[in-house]
Amino acid sequence: MAAVDVAGEFETIRRLFAPLAHPEWGRGLRDDVAVVPSRPGHDLVLTKDALVEGVHFLPTDPLDTVARKLMRVNLSDLAAKGAEPFGYLLACHWSERCGWPERMTFVDGLRADQKAFGVALLGGDTVVTPGPASFSMTLLGWTPKGRTVSRGGARVGDLVFVTGSIGDGWLGLQAAQGKLSLEPDRLAALQDHYRTPMPRLEFSDAIRDFASASIDVSDGLIADLGHIADTSGVRIEIDLELSPRSAAAQVWYDGRVDEQAALEKLVTGGDDYEIAFTARAADEAALRREADRRRLRLTRLGRVVAGQGIIARFAGQPVPFERTGFTHG
Amino acid sequence: MAAVDVAGEFETIRRLFAPLAHPEWGRGLRDDVAVVPSRPGHDLVLTKDALVEGVHFLPTDPLDTVARKLMRVNLSDLAAKGAEPFGYLLACHWSERCGWPERMTFVDGLRADQKAFGVALLGGDTVVTPGPASFSMTLLGWTPKGRTVSRGGARVGDLVFVTGSIGDGWLGLQAAQGKLSLEPDRLAALQDHYRTPMPRLEFSDAIRDFASASIDVSDGLIADLGHIADTSGVRIEIDLELSPRSAAAQVWYDGRVDEQAALEKLVTGGDDYEIAFTARAADEAALRREADRRRLRLTRLGRVVAGQGIIARFAGQPVPFERTGFTHG
Repeated sequence: MAAVDVAGEFETIRRLFAPLAHPEWGRGLRDDVAVVPSRPGHDLVLTKDALVEGVHFLPTDPLDTVARKLMRVNLSDLAAKGAEPFGYLLACHWSERCGWPERMTFVDGLRADQKAFGVALLGGDTVVTPGPASFSMTLLGWTPKGRTVSRGGARVGDLVFVTGSIGDGWLGLQAAQGKLSLEPDRLAALQDHYRTPMPRLEFSDAIRDFASASIDVSDGLIADLGHIADTSGVRIEIDLELSPRSAAAQVWYDGRVDEQAALEKLVTGGDDYEIAFTARAADEAALRREADRRRLRLTRLGRVVAGQGIIARFAGQPVPFERTGFTHG
Repeated sequence: MAAVDVAGEFETIRRLFAPLAHPEWGRGLRDDVAVVPSRPGHDLVLTKDALVEGVHFLPTDPLDTVARKLMRVNLSDLAAKGAEPFGYLLACHWSERCGWPERMTFVDGLRADQKAFGVALLGGDTVVTPGPASFSMTLLGWTPKGRTVSRGGARVGDLVFVTGSIGDGWLGLQAAQGKLSLEPDRLAALQDHYRTPMPRLEFSDAIRDFASASIDVSDGLIADLGHIADTSGVRIEIDLELSPRSAAAQVWYDGRVDEQAALEKLVTGGDDYEIAFTARAADEAALRREADRRRLRLTRLGRVVAGQGIIARFAGQPVPFERTGFTHG
């Protein structure tokens, strides 16, 4: 029909994607399927996220960072569930601007992150679209049988934690859109966080061992903690002032007049890809040891109480939020 | 950024997709991941295909048939490999025309085919796009350990077969575009084949037991047999006149002056979703019994010889083909 693939479907697979394939399970991308042996004593964990140009990434974002972001938002889901990723399937919907050079750039990003995170390509599809480019990934991992952490295990009395810092994803998007005035190295750090967030895979086994419920922060801290509260049938209470800020976010924050409004932006912006989770109070010391051992910042935000929904306080007073926070749609 | 999801991501998941979820493994679509227990003695088989509006389906195609086609082109990949499907992940990239009624229609199609083919939704992503709608599915199945049929097992002396009939996919597309003049019921049959092809899952275990190499016919019979020849390192020789035609295709064919040109269209058009495969000559009788038992048409097209590529003859003379046949890009 309408769209013609100037670069060629078969050539794209053979020259660009086949070198990324899992040596055995991907069948060299020369078959219709991938074949993965069962892993005794383990469950298969799957997640799928899509990125659309103009919605989840900017038309000006380099395609290697788009590939890496796609990989990382999916890795982040597995990290938050305590799973160990091993492979992925990929659907590329190339727009008309995606000729050979652009596709090679995209694959460069995949290659770098495959190496960084120890995953391999299993299969997928490459098509062209007359609209904006979009990409969809199904990521696979393993957890020991029955050990995948859910959103539903938070219990009254648990504490609420988050890894790393919150708000850099949103600030990075503002920076990429030229809406922020900060020193160049601060802007660069924030843009890097927006374009290539760091999934917390190194903390994944600690989450598996100690978290009662967990989620990765993609919709925004408030919205995602709200998902835990809803699924667990509890209320989560946090103090907004405790929300952890990176050095760059702190500089931005210090320049705001309205502290509360600034905090609200940071905790609803999303795209953080940190792990928000609950854990028994008795496990806090062990969790801090695990975090320290990995030089990972770990912040206690609040606690789990009876009730429903999420209560976020600023200066001791509850702040009303639109419950869905920011959504990509 | 640009696109706003009028119908709402969370509402779409909760109201439309959650009822389709696998009762246990899909976690009610209220988590970030699906969790599938390992199946001892079995391999996991995965495939992923995407459909783009204006490329793989027409803007006028009803969305329930688009959903069913997406399901069926993926099921067809598993059927051709001898695998038993059990679940899928789905990424919906809704265009602006996809409000509630359109999404409900899409989900109606999924529901019907879930029931027909015994699969359940495991997870996915729903996003909006400012461009044309597109959909991407990752389908999962099981095969007994080590038994997944590949494209690479054809050996000199094997025979070449195809299930069902060839050319209805291409004719159906012509019919849907108003380019064919045939009786209304013929046109309807062809359009149905184009919109909701029938994956040959009922023949999947026979393929697993008897095929030396196999592929589903999506790019076109010539192109797909060419894939088997390339991967197996053999030559495939077939007679074009043997290519099986449905009743509707036969009526169309009988109206052509240039028989060879007509056959070339049918064997390169693609979108057939039959299984093309090779098997030992000694297994032909057993294969025919299996096909008869299922009332499935099975046609012997030719044989496997030493050499490379595919030779298709008309009236005894080799016909030159563009090797890639029709590709969607």
